This record gives sequence, C-alpha cells and structure tokens, in this order.
Amino acid sequence: MDIISVRDFSKEQVEEILSSAEKMEKKIGETQSSGKVVATLFFEPSTRTKLSFQTAASRLGMRYIDFFGEWSSLKKGESFTDTIKNIDGYVDIIVMRHPKEGSAKLASMIAEAPVVNGGDGGNQHPTQALLDLYTIKKLKGKIKGLNFNLVGDLKHARTMQSLMYMLAMFGAKVKLTSPRGLEMDPELVREVKEKFNAEIEENDKMDVEGVDILYACRIQKERFADPYEAMSVQKKFAIGMENLKGAKDDLAIMHPLPKVGEVDLEIDHTPYAKYFEQSKNGVPTRMAVLDYVLKHR
Amino acid sequence: MDIISVRDFSKEQVEEILSSAEKMEKKIGETQSSGKVVATLFFEPSTRTKLSFQTAASRLGMRYIDFFGEWSSLKKGESFTDTIKNIDGYVDIIVMRHPKEGSAKLASMIAEAPVVNGGDGGNQHPTQALLDLYTIKKLKGKIKGLNFNLVGDLKHARTMQSLMYMLAMFGAKVKLTSPRGLEMDPELVREVKEKFNAEIEENDKMDVEGVDILYACRIQKERFADPYEAMSVQKKFAIGMENLKGAKDDLAIMHPLPKVGEVDLEIDHTPYAKYFEQSKNGVPTRMAVLDYVLKHR
Amino acid sequence: MDIISVRDFSKEQVEEILSSAEKMEKKIGETQSSGKVVATLFFEPSTRTKLSFQTAASRLGMRYIDFFGEWSSLKKGESFTDTIKNIDGYVDIIVMRHPKEGSAKLASMIAEAPVVNGGDGGNQHPTQALLDLYTIKKLKGKIKGLNFNLVGDLKHARTMQSLMYMLAMFGAKVKLTSPRGLEMDPELVREVKEKFNAEIEENDKMDVEGVDILYACRIQKERFADPYEAMSVQKKFAIGMENLKGAKDDLAIMHPLPKVGEVDLEIDHTPYAKYFEQSKNGVPTRMAVLDYVLKHR
Repeated sequence: MDIISVRDFSKEQVEEILSSAEKMEKKIGETQSSGKVVATLFFEPSTRTKLSFQTAASRLGMRYIDFFGEWSSLKKGESFTDTIKNIDGYVDIIVMRHPKEGSAKLASMIAEAPVVNGGDGGNQHPTQALLDLYTIKKLKGKIKGLNFNLVGDLKHARTMQSLMYMLAMFGAKVKLTSPRGLEMDPELVREVKEKFNAEIEENDKMDVEGVDILYACRIQKERFADPYEAMSVQKKFAIGMENLKGAKDDLAIMHPLPKVGEVDLEIDHTPYAKYFEQSKNGVPTRMAVLDYVLKHR
Repeated sequence: MDIISVRDFSKEQVEEILSSAEKMEKKIGETQSSGKVVATLFFEPSTRTKLSFQTAASRLGMRYIDFFGEWSSLKKGESFTDTIKNIDGYVDIIVMRHPKEGSAKLASMIAEAPVVNGGDGGNQHPTQALLDLYTIKKLKGKIKGLNFNLVGDLKHARTMQSLMYMLAMFGAKVKLTSPRGLEMDPELVREVKEKFNAEIEENDKMDVEGVDILYACRIQKERFADPYEAMSVQKKFAIGMENLKGAKDDLAIMHPLPKVGEVDLEIDHTPYAKYFEQSKNGVPTRMAVLDYVLKHR
Repeated sequence: MDIISVRDFSKEQVEEILSSAEKMEKKIGETQSSGKVVATLFFEPSTRTKLSFQTAASRLGMRYIDFFGEWSSLKKGESFTDTIKNIDGYVDIIVMRHPKEGSAKLASMIAEAPVVNGGDGGNQHPTQALLDLYTIKKLKGKIKGLNFNLVGDLKHARTMQSLMYMLAMFGAKVKLTSPRGLEMDPELVREVKEKFNAEIEENDKMDVEGVDILYACRIQKERFADPYEAMSVQKKFAIGMENLKGAKDDLAIMHPLPKVGEVDLEIDHTPYAKYFEQSKNGVPTRMAVLDYVLKHR
C-alpha cells in the first residue's frame, strides 16, 4: 500500500497504525533485525521528516539510502520517471518529498515498491497528520469530541489540510483561525464538513476558551510576495502568554515545527508546550508506517 | 583483490562473480549480518553507482560511510594520498569514483583495503560491465555467439570500452555504431580483436538485423565543445520504433542510464526495453563484487 | 555522561576509556548488534571526526543519522535550541561539531541524550585528545615521564590545548614550540602547571633532542589576517628530515591531520611517521567513547 494522502485511509486503517505506533514506541532502543532497505528520496530539503524516517528505519533494523544532494542524473537530464524506476529497482520502500503537488502519486504509479509521501508541495503530508493524531491520543486518550483551534496560514500549510481532514474523520470539533486571505481552501472545508458531518467553524481572531488543542503552524514567508506582509501576519497570529488567558489547564499547544516566532519562547517552558513531544512521536509513528506498508503490499 | 579495470579479470573470475550474483539475488530482502564497513568515496556526483553500492552493502548486512559533500580536508589542502590513507584506516572496502583516469589504480596502491573502481574519468567502470554481463546472461542464458550492436558516442563512454572488452572475452560478435569522430579508440579495438580473436565490426549507420542486444549509451554533452553538434549527434543516433523494423522478436535494448533522449520514450513500454531491469541488476552484481573482494584479499 | 571538555575527566575515567578502546580494537570487523542510533550533527565540515564516529557507531552495530547539508530548518529560521531538542527526541547519542565555543556545552544542557563534543570552535576537541593518548600508550606503553614537543600554531589549535591538559594530567614532560604571537594561552599553561604540578617549558625554536613524541599541528591559515604571514610561519615550523638530526631512534611524529605542509612528505616513509596509525586509532577510541557515554547515562 502507498501512503499518498490522508484520503486514502479509512478510520480503521488509521487506528491500526496508531495502535501499532504505540507498540513500536515500547520497542525503541531494542535491537531489531531486518533485511529491508528504505530510500529517502528528498527533492526538497527537510530536517525532521527525513531524519525521523531514517531513525524509524534504523530502529526497525532496516537500512536506508539517501538521495539528498545527489542530483547528478537529474542534472544530466534524467526524467523523474526514470529516477523513480531506478530507485524502485533497488529498495523495498520509497519515502519521497517533492516540491510539486501530485508527484508522490505519480511516483506511486511508477514504482512497484510502496511509496510514502513525505510532503508534495502545498498538498499533502499524511505522516505528519498521523503523528499529530498519535500525539493527541497519547495526551488526551481520545480525539472524538475534543475542541481544536488551528491557527495560522491555513492556505499554504499542507500539514493543516491533512490534519483538519483527519480530525473531522475522528469526530473532533475544529475552529480555523487565519488571517484574511490565508484561509483554508473553502472547497476543502465544505467537502470535509459534508463527508464527516463535522463541526468546523472559521474566525479571524484567536480564541482559546474551551480549546483542548491549540495547533499553530509556520507562516511560510517564502510563499509571500511581500516579506513585510509576512512579518506582520506572523506577529498578529503569534501565540504569547497573553493569548492564553482563560485557557484550560490542560490546554496542549502543538506545532509541526520548525517554529519561527509563531509561539513565544516563554511558552516552551510551560506545560502547555507539547511540540517537542509531538516531534519525538514522529519516530514511532513512522516506524508503524514503514511496517504497515510492507505488511499491506 | 582490487577491481580497477576489466583487464584485471580472467574469464573464470568473471564467471565466479556472475554465478555469485545469481545467488545474491535470491537472498535480497533476507536479514543478513556483517561487521564490515564500506566507504563510498565519490569525488564526482553519481546516483546509480553510489546508491546501488550502498544498497548492496546494506543487503549484505554491511554498513557504509559516505564521503560525498565532505570535501573539508581537501578544501583545507589535504593530498589525495592522505585522504585515501585515512579512509583506509577506517573501513574494509573502498568504493571510489574520481574524475581523473588512473586515480582508482593509484588509490589501490595506497590503500590496504580492497579498492573497487566506480568509474575513473573516461577510463574504466568495471562493475558496470559486470552488471551488463549479468543482465545478458539472465536474459539470454549465454553470451557466446550473441550479436551485439553498441551504439552512440563510443569515444567518451567509459562503460562501452569495458563492455566491448568483456564481450570479446566471452566470444560475442560486436558491431560498433558511432558518429564520425566519436568512434571507439582504434588502438583498443585492434588490441581486443587480437587478444580474443574477436569479431568486431564498425559502421556508421544503425542496423538491427540479426542483433540480439542493442546497447545504447548517453551522448556526453559536457564533453562536446559545441552543444549543437552534441544535439545533432544525439538525434541522429537516437533509437526510435522506426529503427526497430526487422528487429528480432527477442531483441533486448540496454543502456547504462541515465538516458536523455538516446532511446525514445515509447520504447520504454515495449518488451525490448531491458534497461531498468539492467539497472536493478546492479544490486546483486555489486553484492557479489563486495563479497568477492573480501574473500580474495 | 556528556563529553564536552577534557576537564570533565578524571584520570581514572580516561584510563577506563583507553582500556575499553583496546578491547574495542580487537573486535573490529566482528558482527555486533545494537538498537542504538547516533546523530552526527555537524554544523561545520569535517572528514575524519565525522567519518570515524560513523564508522565507530557502525562497528558497534549502532546506526547513525547525519545532519550535514540539511540546514533546511535552520534556513527557515529555527533556533539552535529547537534543533537540538528535535534531534534529541530521535536518537540515543548526539555527536556535535559547531564553530562556536561553548555550543557543545549548551547542547548538553538542552538534550537528554549524552552529547559528545566533536569540536567547538577553537575551544575543545576531547575525543582527539583521547585518541592521541590511546596512540601514545600503544606506541610507548606509557605516558608518564615521556618527553613531548608540541609544535606549531598553539594559539588556535583546539587539539593542542586539550592534549597539553591530558599530558600534564598523566605526568608527561611537555615542551611548547610556537612562532611568536601564536603561543599557547599563558593562562591555560599556568593553570595546568599548577593543577598537575607539571613540567611545561616554552621555546620558539624546534628541538628534538631527547624528544619521544614530536606533535605537529596544522597552521590554520583561515585564522590569519595576512595569508603571507601564515605561509611564512608554516615554512619556518615545518618539520623536515633536517630537523630530525639527533632525534631518538624511536621518535614518534604525530599530527591530528589533515596536514598541509607542516610535515615533509619524505617523513611519511620513515618509521617516525605515526599520524596515519593515529588517525586509524580514532575508530576504536570513539567506539569506546560511544560505549562509555551510554553506560554512564
């Protein structure tokens, strides 16, 4: 099975992966053996996604080969199709990031090996959504009925689209808070509402009352024409202690990281801050993903 | 034993490696353990050669360390000799690519660990020739007596020189088809003819009649002074469906990859196309090579 | 336990690591298994230190993930603290090099995993000092009472400061030979003399009489304002055969490498030259270090 989009998953499949991740986490540090090889094929830089997949493969006893920086054949003019076919001939799983939307899907049609999408442009980042769900379940014991506030540039953040979809699937209540002009794609919101009969509400001011999970994301400066606008938006939607008045005691603040000013540094030292724990959960979640795609070939 | 040039091999040695590769292929995906470490020391970019060696090492349960991008000591002015001596102190096998002819040989004289040449300039690329032979044997069951047509820029393609040598050694019949001015080194042709009493014939038009293996190679644009000449040569010697009239049903088209227009895309979807299979065979062949050099220290 | 500075060590701890390195060396090449993952987090280029740590991890059956070249999140503006927290969430040991003094210490305060300093600016490089001691013990059977001459730019070479400290701790006699203006920090010399009641003597001409170990280091050209001054200093303090008149037969010449003219090439071929052996000893020493920090968490 390929993992391209959160839309490929049924609720049961997600639950299977989350429950496997829990078991994986307990085995971290144990010696494991496997003859499998994973390719981390990153056409765009990445720290967390790539390193956590490589760690996950290593924890499972698998090996990895890494494509970063080795653009030689692409420089020589090789087609995307040929590159994928070649790598496919070598390895058991392909983990891929690419700046173009749809490229992971395309790769999955070319390759025999399962393809795991590590982010395709502004489109999907399904394993981020999975590790987010895993984190929420660990923190709160459930997802259904929880109140979420997703804050930031919801237009460009691929992680937020995948996450909203998953939260709706699991019956959470979602508020979307974004600057004007950076709202979540309305088409997607409508579709998700209908499909899951979900409670999704949009507003343009931050509100933490009754919120269980406040989920912030990076303002993607590189996607703004005007850097000053980017900075002004970032400031207005940054989360500081002053925004947390009236927050629930067990409010959890999450962020896909890297964070660059969206969350005040002083929050790092409060029990609200769950983003480093969340990042750490990337390893067991991706162990479960690698294991899953091999088992469901 | 070092693997520097196809000329280092006797026919028996090649047969031993090919037969070992066959066994290796069956074990791919099985858990294997080894305490050995391979250095992939690439002074020039590479996709296939490096990644397939790293995959091969991983499949054998070995580890690898990778030198790409870590030019620091060279930047600080360290000599080639010192770099090799250092790496030699760390690992069990050195796989090396370098832009200069003869550098693999030089490394092998410096290092105690076996050195495997992964390409030294326009000179040799012996493991490519081995995987080509392995592919041919898998496809046709034999090499002796088969009709080959080697097509393209035979002057600059290091893979073609090594291949012609090996084909002659195994008693194949070889046609060499190249644009004027890009012929295979006549000295080498004469030498190989004499040494193996081989049938080698040169012509400047493509001909597939009676051909069992049509072997194309990349026009190395970077070695042309005039890019337009490179493009014109590429077009004239590109293989399209129209060139395959009169071809044998079981004609196999091979290419060391990456291909950039030398073979029409529509051929990818015909049973003639064997280049992706060929590329995949790089892994078991290089497993056999790594195993061989350790066993014959 | 973190390994940040040679000052963190007692003599007993150093002896434990050296004796472990000896055992490690005998096991090199044997298959070992471990579920542990090491991050090599190099914010500055490195050949030897990084590759020998990766080899050491591999020899122990551990895996590594490598951060070099993956500056993405830093480019996106992520803080040093966040980067360390993230990596810390993934792995069991962090090996780090960073151009800024004190950054390894900072990382060790952020991370839960043990941090091993692979060099922080002009400050410390403790595992180099350990491998130096390991080499000396292997060569001479002891350290106490031996005569050392440390030659070169003693102001900028971090390895020399760590080494002098260790040699004094172990009761060796140390001469410091450096060009005027490039002397070892006098504060440090005074402190080490007092602390260990050590014999340390400074002079500005090379002298090999009675010397057991002549330890040269790279003139760090990049730290000179005037490149001509750097070259003139390098020439004056280069070690050639003519400097070795009157040397003991079993004089050992050491160098942390890379060397760039500080030692004449002809010396490479004499039995005096021990620097390649020294470099090779980086692997067992770092195996012992990785093992030690895990055992003393």
